[in-house]
Amino acid sequence: MDFRLSAQSADLKTRLESFMDEHVYPAESAYREELEGPNGRWATPPLMAGLKALARERGLWNLFIPAEHAEFGGAGLSNVDYAPLAEVMGRVLWAPEIFNCNAPDTGNMEVFMRYGTAAQQERWLKPLLAGEIRSAYAMTEPAVASSDATNIECSIRRDGDDYVVDGRKWFITGAMHDDCTILIVMGKSGPDNPDRHRQQSQILVPRDTAGVTVERHLRTLGYDDAPLGHAEVVFEKVRVPAENILLGEGRGFEIAQGRLGPGRIHHCMRLIGCAQRALELACARVESRSTFGRRIGEHQSVREAIARSYAEIASSRLLTLLTADKIDREGGKAARDLIAAAKITVPEMAQRVIDRAIQMHGAGGLSDDWFMAEAFAYARYCRLVDGPDEVHMMALGKQIIRRYGAGVG
Amino acid sequence: MDFRLSAQSADLKTRLESFMDEHVYPAESAYREELEGPNGRWATPPLMAGLKALARERGLWNLFIPAEHAEFGGAGLSNVDYAPLAEVMGRVLWAPEIFNCNAPDTGNMEVFMRYGTAAQQERWLKPLLAGEIRSAYAMTEPAVASSDATNIECSIRRDGDDYVVDGRKWFITGAMHDDCTILIVMGKSGPDNPDRHRQQSQILVPRDTAGVTVERHLRTLGYDDAPLGHAEVVFEKVRVPAENILLGEGRGFEIAQGRLGPGRIHHCMRLIGCAQRALELACARVESRSTFGRRIGEHQSVREAIARSYAEIASSRLLTLLTADKIDREGGKAARDLIAAAKITVPEMAQRVIDRAIQMHGAGGLSDDWFMAEAFAYARYCRLVDGPDEVHMMALGKQIIRRYGAGVG
Amino acid sequence: MDFRLSAQSADLKTRLESFMDEHVYPAESAYREELEGPNGRWATPPLMAGLKALARERGLWNLFIPAEHAEFGGAGLSNVDYAPLAEVMGRVLWAPEIFNCNAPDTGNMEVFMRYGTAAQQERWLKPLLAGEIRSAYAMTEPAVASSDATNIECSIRRDGDDYVVDGRKWFITGAMHDDCTILIVMGKSGPDNPDRHRQQSQILVPRDTAGVTVERHLRTLGYDDAPLGHAEVVFEKVRVPAENILLGEGRGFEIAQGRLGPGRIHHCMRLIGCAQRALELACARVESRSTFGRRIGEHQSVREAIARSYAEIASSRLLTLLTADKIDREGGKAARDLIAAAKITVPEMAQRVIDRAIQMHGAGGLSDDWFMAEAFAYARYCRLVDGPDEVHMMALGKQIIRRYGAGVG
Amino acid sequence: MDFRLSAQSADLKTRLESFMDEHVYPAESAYREELEGPNGRWATPPLMAGLKALARERGLWNLFIPAEHAEFGGAGLSNVDYAPLAEVMGRVLWAPEIFNCNAPDTGNMEVFMRYGTAAQQERWLKPLLAGEIRSAYAMTEPAVASSDATNIECSIRRDGDDYVVDGRKWFITGAMHDDCTILIVMGKSGPDNPDRHRQQSQILVPRDTAGVTVERHLRTLGYDDAPLGHAEVVFEKVRVPAENILLGEGRGFEIAQGRLGPGRIHHCMRLIGCAQRALELACARVESRSTFGRRIGEHQSVREAIARSYAEIASSRLLTLLTADKIDREGGKAARDLIAAAKITVPEMAQRVIDRAIQMHGAGGLSDDWFMAEAFAYARYCRLVDGPDEVHMMALGKQIIRRYGAGVG
Repeated sequence: MDFRLSAQSADLKTRLESFMDEHVYPAESAYREELEGPNGRWATPPLMAGLKALARERGLWNLFIPAEHAEFGGAGLSNVDYAPLAEVMGRVLWAPEIFNCNAPDTGNMEVFMRYGTAAQQERWLKPLLAGEIRSAYAMTEPAVASSDATNIECSIRRDGDDYVVDGRKWFITGAMHDDCTILIVMGKSGPDNPDRHRQQSQILVPRDTAGVTVERHLRTLGYDDAPLGHAEVVFEKVRVPAENILLGEGRGFEIAQGRLGPGRIHHCMRLIGCAQRALELACARVESRSTFGRRIGEHQSVREAIARSYAEIASSRLLTLLTADKIDREGGKAARDLIAAAKITVPEMAQRVIDRAIQMHGAGGLSDDWFMAEAFAYARYCRLVDGPDEVHMMALGKQIIRRYGAGVG
Repeated sequence: MDFRLSAQSADLKTRLESFMDEHVYPAESAYREELEGPNGRWATPPLMAGLKALARERGLWNLFIPAEHAEFGGAGLSNVDYAPLAEVMGRVLWAPEIFNCNAPDTGNMEVFMRYGTAAQQERWLKPLLAGEIRSAYAMTEPAVASSDATNIECSIRRDGDDYVVDGRKWFITGAMHDDCTILIVMGKSGPDNPDRHRQQSQILVPRDTAGVTVERHLRTLGYDDAPLGHAEVVFEKVRVPAENILLGEGRGFEIAQGRLGPGRIHHCMRLIGCAQRALELACARVESRSTFGRRIGEHQSVREAIARSYAEIASSRLLTLLTADKIDREGGKAARDLIAAAKITVPEMAQRVIDRAIQMHGAGGLSDDWFMAEAFAYARYCRLVDGPDEVHMMALGKQIIRRYGAGVG
Repeated sequence: MDFRLSAQSADLKTRLESFMDEHVYPAESAYREELEGPNGRWATPPLMAGLKALARERGLWNLFIPAEHAEFGGAGLSNVDYAPLAEVMGRVLWAPEIFNCNAPDTGNMEVFMRYGTAAQQERWLKPLLAGEIRSAYAMTEPAVASSDATNIECSIRRDGDDYVVDGRKWFITGAMHDDCTILIVMGKSGPDNPDRHRQQSQILVPRDTAGVTVERHLRTLGYDDAPLGHAEVVFEKVRVPAENILLGEGRGFEIAQGRLGPGRIHHCMRLIGCAQRALELACARVESRSTFGRRIGEHQSVREAIARSYAEIASSRLLTLLTADKIDREGGKAARDLIAAAKITVPEMAQRVIDRAIQMHGAGGLSDDWFMAEAFAYARYCRLVDGPDEVHMMALGKQIIRRYGAGVG
Repeated sequence: MDFRLSAQSADLKTRLESFMDEHVYPAESAYREELEGPNGRWATPPLMAGLKALARERGLWNLFIPAEHAEFGGAGLSNVDYAPLAEVMGRVLWAPEIFNCNAPDTGNMEVFMRYGTAAQQERWLKPLLAGEIRSAYAMTEPAVASSDATNIECSIRRDGDDYVVDGRKWFITGAMHDDCTILIVMGKSGPDNPDRHRQQSQILVPRDTAGVTVERHLRTLGYDDAPLGHAEVVFEKVRVPAENILLGEGRGFEIAQGRLGPGRIHHCMRLIGCAQRALELACARVESRSTFGRRIGEHQSVREAIARSYAEIASSRLLTLLTADKIDREGGKAARDLIAAAKITVPEMAQRVIDRAIQMHGAGGLSDDWFMAEAFAYARYCRLVDGPDEVHMMALGKQIIRRYGAGVG
C-alpha cells in the first residue's frame, strides 16, 4: 500500500496550486463583478479567456482525459492521479473551466470519446476539447421522478431519416450559457420495449434547432450558478437527422450508466476541495477574532469542530481516491459499489464541514464575501445531482446485502 | 396541564388560516413577480397594501403586541396565545408584514413600547404601529465578533446637546427597504466604564441623517431577502440630538437583553410554520410520484423521514410554547433558559425538516418553484441571528451547570 | 394553554421526590448488594418489602391506575397527571416497583382491568394490585420478526374445554422473577382466518403449568435486568382451561393494540427521568473536576453538550405530556400518532443524553458506580421494546402522509 | 498511489482468515462456556492454549511487532501491513490473544522493546512475547481527570535504593487476569518540577509486591471483559528496587506519548473488524426474515442503513491505514494528527454501525447470542480509552488551527 501521489500527479498538483495562488484566488472578486457586467450572467466573464490560454500554455489543459483516451489530449492520467488535481481546481467553483475540466462538459466529452462516431467527434468533441463551445446533458424532467430512468417521458421518435424529439427537461446544467451549442438528450425511443432498460435513447440536439426553447433558468438554494445556469428546456417537434443518435437506438440507459462513474468522482474531489478550503478559512477566522476573553480558536467546541472536519475530509478524500483507483483497475461497472459510497458520503460531508465553517464566520459566512455559501449550495445540490442519494443507497444496499446475505462467520 | 388553545387564540388562528388560504397562498407567485418589477427589489410589492388593509379590517393587525402593552393596540394576547398565530403567518416568509407582525419591526416596536419616551413613541412608534414606515436594528459589526457585546466598536459620543455616531454595521435587516426611516443603533458610549455591560448605549438615528450611508446589501445563502435586505451601513460623524438616546446612556446592553426574548420566540414559531408547511408539501409530493414500482411515500425510508419530521416539529412547537408561557408568567429574564433552549433547537430542526422535504422533491426542491429553498436559508440564517447558537449554549450550559452542579440524588 | 401540573399531581410529585430522597437514593448500593446475595438474582431484594409498605402507607401506591379504572385503586389520575410521577420514579431503575408501578406488571394489570373477566380479575389482578405476585407478557418469538404480529408462530389450539399452547418465546420480561406466576401469551388461534388481524389470541398461562419451561435468561447490552430478567420460555403442549382466553378467540391483536398506549408513555416518562438524572449528575461532575487549567464545566464544548441535553429533555418531556393528554381526551387509538412520535423520540434522546453524561464522567461513567450505564442499556433496549422504532415510524409516516397527502397551501 | 496489500500482508491475511474460519468462529460458544467454568472468569479458558500453539505453529504469532523491532520476533511487518491483520483478529473480541496480539500486552511489550533495559526485557518482555504471562498498564485514577496527565496523584518517591509507590488506580485493563504478573505504573516522582511534563515517571511493579491490592473489577456497559477485567488497584507503600524505573525518573510522560501511537491504530483496526462483521451479520439477517410482506432487506430504510455502514467502514478503514502508513514513514510524533483523527473517528463509527446491526436483529441483537452487544460496549469504551475523544480533539483542533490559521487562498 502506498498513499503517495505519483511523481506526475504530484508535479501537476504543485503547478496547479501555484496557478491558483497566482492567478485564480486573486481574480475571484473580478470574476464576480464581470458576471454582473453588460454581457449578462450567461456569458463567460472576459477574464476567463486569458486564464484558459495561460492554463493551456502551462500544460494544465484537459487533464481530466483518462489515459485510455489519451489520443484526445490531456496528460494520460489515471483517475487516481487526476483526483487530487480536481480537488485543487474545486477550491474555486468556477476554476475548473480554466483547465477545461468543468462539469458537465467533461462528462459530455467522455460520452463523445466513448460512444461518438468519428463524425460526431469531429463536429462536437473537437471544439469542446478546445474549450470553444459548451454542452449540456438533458436528463431530468419536471413531471416525473426521473431518477428512475424508466419514468422518463420525453419522446424520441423515428420519422424517416430523422428523429423527432418532444418533451420537457429541467435542471439542464450549462444550457443557459451563451456558448452552449449542443445538448445530449435522453428520451424514450421504444416505450413498449419489454426490456425496460432498452426503452431509452440518447440523441444529439444542437441548441439552435427549431423547436428547442430555453424557457427559464432555475436557481438552486438561491444561486443561479451563472454562467452555466440550470435551464428548463422544451422540445417541440424537434427534428434532427438520424445519425445524431448516440451509440444506437435503445442504448440510452447504457450510456447513462457509463457516463457517470468518473464524473461522480470529479464532483466528489471538487467538493473535497471546497471542504478543505472552508476548513482553512475557518482556521484563519478563529485565529483572528476573540469572544469572551479568548480567541475563538481557543474555545474547546471550536477545536472539536475543526478536528472533526479535518478527520472527515481526510476520510472522504481517501474513499474517493480508492474509488478512482478501482475504476482505474477494474472499470466503472465493477467500481459501482465504491462510486455509490463516495456519491452518498462526500456531498454530505462537504455540506457539514462548510456549514461549520460558515457558523464560525458569523452572519458574514452566509454572504458572498466568502466562497462558502455558494459552495454550501453546490454541496447540497450534489446530494441530488446524478440522482438523489437515496437511489444510490438503494442500489448499494441491495448489492452489499447480496454480497454478505448468504451468511458469515 | 392543558394543551388546548384559549378560545381567543383558537378563533384568531382559524381566521388567520382562512386569510392565508384565501389571500396569501394564491398571491405567492404574484408577489415574487412584483418584486422583480419596476420599483426594484427594495420596494414593497404593490399587492401588499391591499392585503394589509384587509388584515386590519379583519382584526388581524398588530396581534404581536403583548397584553401588557395593550394600550398600543393588538388583541391583548399573551405570548403563548400569540405563538400559534405566528406559526400560521410563518408559512409564507413575507406574510407576517400583512399583519404588521414582521421582524425586525415587531422587536423595534417593543423597544419603543418599553423604553421609548412619549415623544419617541409619538414620532416613531405610531407610524410603525400603523404600518406606514419601517425600521432597523443596527447591532452587528463586520470587524469584530459582536455576539460578544463588549467587542462592539461603533462609537456614540456625547458632544454638547448631540450625540455623534461613528462606526460600521452590517446585516442590518430591513435597512435596504425603501420605507425604512429609523435605525436603532447600538454603540459604545462609555468604552472605559469598568462595568463592561454599561459601556453601551442605543440611540435613534433616522436613516436620512447626514453621514449615514447604506453601502450595499448582503445575501444570505444566495437570498437577498428583499424587500427587507440585510444592509451594510456606515455612520460617519452622524449627529443626532441627545434626546434620541434610548432609556439613558449606558443602558444599551440592558435594552438588548430585554428586546430579544419574545422576538426569538416569534422567529421560532415562524420557523415551525415553515417546517410544518415543508412537511405537508413533502407528503403531497411523495403521494403523487412513483419510483421503482411504488409510490415514493411507500418507501420505508420516506415514511421514517416523515415520521421523524412530524415528531420533531411537534416537540419543537411544544418547547416554544412552554417558553412563551414562561415569559408570560415569569418574565423574559426568568425565561432565558427556555428562550436559549428554543433558540438553539428550532432553527436546526427547521433546517433539518426542510432539508428532508427538499430531498423528497428532487432538484426542483432547491428551486424557487417551492418556498422551501428560501425557508431553508431563513432557518440557516436564524442559527446566527441574535447571536450564533454557540453563544446561547454557552450561557445556557453555564446556567444549567450552576443549577445542578452542587450535587444530586 | 397551561403547562402547570394539577394540584393533585404537584402534591404527589413533591411527596414522591421526598420519598426518593429519603428512602430510595440512599438504598441504591444496598439494593445492588442484596441482588448479589444468597437468594439469587431472581428474588426481590429483601429491602423492597419495607419500601413497598412505606409507599403504600404514604398513599403512593398504584398511582398508574387511570381515572377510568379508579375502582381498582390508585389516585384517579389522568395520564397527564401521572406522567410526571413516572418520571420521578424512573430516576432509579428499580424504583417503580416500590410504588407497584413497574413494567410489565402495570401493562398487564391494565389488560386485566380492561379485558379480564371478573374471575380472571379476582384470581390475578387482585394479587397484582397488592404487589404480591408478578406477571409477564409473552409476545416476542426468536424464530420470526414478531414485530409484524402476523408472523407469530406460537399456536393456541382449542381442544375440548381446553386450549393447548405450543411455541417458543423470548425476551419475556419478568418471567425470570421468582414471584412471577402468570403469563399472558400471544399466539395464533386461527392461522387460516382471512382477516390477518383476527388470527391471534391472548391466553392466560400460569407459569407453573405443565409444559412451560423457562429455559434461560437473556442479557441486554450486558445487563440481566435482575430480578425481572428477560426469559426464553418454551411452551410444549401446555394445556389451560378455555376460560383462560382473554376477551375471546381471535382478539389478541386488538388487545395488543389496546395494551400499549399508556405503557409506552410510562416507558417514555421513566426514560426522561433517567435522562434528567444523568444531566444532573453530569453537571455535578463537571463542576468538581478540572483539566487543562479550568473546570471541565468551563470548557465550551461541555457547556454546549449540557445545553443541548437540557433542551432535548425539555422537548421530549413535553411531547410525552402532550401524548398523555391526547390519550386522556381522545383515547389511545386517536393518539396513536403521538404515541408513535414519543416512542421513537424519547429512547433515542435518553440514549444520547446519557451517552454525553457518561463521556463527561470518563471511564467511570461506564461502570456500575453510577446508574448511567444501566440506564443507557435500558434506553437502548426501549428502541426495540414494543416493536422496533422502524415499525412505529412505518405506521406514523403512513398516517401523516395520508393526512397531508391530498395537497396543501 | 496503490491501495493493494503487500504480498506478505495479503498472504498473512488469507491465512488468518482461514484460521478464524476453521478454529475461532466455531469456538465462540465454547469459549463463553469455559469462562463460566470452575476456574472462574479471570482464568484463560482452557481452549486458548491449543489455539495459541496452533497460531504459533502456523507463523501467526507476534505479528504486531513492528519491523524496527524485528529482533524480538514477528514477521517484520510495517504498521500498514499489520493493520488489515488486526482487523481480521478483531472480528472476535478475544481472538487477538490467540496470536499474542492483544491489548494491553502489545502496548506494554512495545514499551519494553523501546524503553526497557536488557534486564527488564529478559525478565518481563521474554515471557510476554512467549505468551506466558500477562501485563497491565496503570494510568487512570478515580479521584482526578487523569486524561490530563498533570493531574495524576499517584506518588513514586525515591527512598534509598528503592522507589515507594502510593496511590489508587482504576480501569487497569488486564490486572484482574490470573496470569497478570507485571504492572507498569504511571505516577508523580517530581510533583514540584516546574516542567509539568517531567513530573511523571513510569515504574515496574510486580503484581504480587507487598502493598498491591486488587480491590475489585469494574464493568463497562455491563461487561466485565473477562478474563482481562478492568481492575481498581491500590498501592500502599509499595516498595520496588530503583532499577524498576522505566527509561529514567521524570520521563513518564514521554513514555506515555510514545506508547500510544500504534496501539491506538490497533484498537481502530480491531474495531473496524467488529463493524465489518456486524455489517455482514446484518446482511445475513435481513435476508432471512420478512415483515409486512417483504424481506427486511427489501425495505428501503434498511438498504440505506446498510449502504451507509458500508461507506463508513470503508472510509474509516482507509483513514486508519493512512495513519499506519504515516507512522511507518514519519514516526508516531509526526503522525499524531492522523492518530487523533482515527482515534475520534473509528470508535464512533463502529458504535454506529454495530448499533444499526443490532437494531436489524431485533431484541436478540442486544443479547449475547451474537457478538454485537459486547462489541458495541467495546466501541463505546474506546471513546474513553487512552483519554476521552475530547482530549484528542483538543490537541488536533489546536494543531490544525495553527497549521492553517495564518491565512489561505
